[in-house]
Amino acid sequence: MEQTTGAAGREKVKAIKWAEVEVEQLSPQIGRQFLTGTNVMLARFFLKKGATIPLHSHHHEQVAYVLEGALRFVVDGSTLIVRSGEVLCIPPGVAHEAVALEDTINLDIFNPPRQDWLEKQDAYLRQGAE
Amino acid sequence: MEQTTGAAGREKVKAIKWAEVEVEQLSPQIGRQFLTGTNVMLARFFLKKGATIPLHSHHHEQVAYVLEGALRFVVDGSTLIVRSGEVLCIPPGVAHEAVALEDTINLDIFNPPRQDWLEKQDAYLRQGAE
Repeated sequence: MEQTTGAAGREKVKAIKWAEVEVEQLSPQIGRQFLTGTNVMLARFFLKKGATIPLHSHHHEQVAYVLEGALRFVVDGSTLIVRSGEVLCIPPGVAHEAVALEDTINLDIFNPPRQDWLEKQDAYLRQGAE
Repeated sequence: MEQTTGAAGREKVKAIKWAEVEVEQLSPQIGRQFLTGTNVMLARFFLKKGATIPLHSHHHEQVAYVLEGALRFVVDGSTLIVRSGEVLCIPPGVAHEAVALEDTINLDIFNPPRQDWLEKQDAYLRQGAE
C-alpha cells in the first residue's frame, strides 16, 4: 500500500514497501518492480542465472546497483562484470546489454522516469517470454 | 577504484565498488559514502541506533531506500517509520528529519546531485561530531 501525505496540489511524500509492489514477470527469467518519485524511478530486477537484457539504449540516465548476484554488462563496447555491492553509472544514450552470471537482484535508478515503461512499451525486456 | 570507459569529451561509464568508496565519518554515529552519476547521486548512510539527521530541506528530490534497520522520519509534519525494504519519496523542498531506531544502512538517491556535499557544505550532518 502506498502511504501519502501532503497538501493537495503539491507533489506528495510517498512511503512504499517493496513487498507490496507488484512484481511483473516479463519473462520466465526476469521479474521487475518499479516505483516513481518526482524525477527519478527506482526499479528492482529479479534475474535468474542466464537472464539476458538485450542491447538497447535510452535517453534516461541509468545507475545500476547490484544488491545480490552478478551481472556481465557490455556497455559502450566494453565488457564489465558488476557484482553485489557494486554500481555501474550509464550516462544517457549509451547502449548497454546485461547477462546475469548468477541469480541476481539489481536496483536500477533512472532519471527521468521511464515513461516507456509506464506506458507498457517494454517489449525488449519480454523477448524471452513464453 | 573507479573504472571508466568511453571516448574523451563524453560523459563516461563508471563502475564503482562501494567497498572502495571512502566512508566519511560525519559524527560518531553517522558514516556516509556517495557517488555521482550524471544527474543523480547515490549515498549510503551508516547510522548507529539513535543517530539523528536534524530537520532540513533542499531543492533536491530525495528517495530513501532503507537497506537494513529502520528510520523514523518526520516529513511534511507527519511521522513515518521506514523499515528495511521500504522506500520514502521526498519531493524537492519538503522539510524532513530522521532518527535511526536501530543500526541502519540507508541508500539515498538525489536528483540533482548534492553540490553542497561536493563542496563540503554539510555542517548540518556533523552537528553531533565530537
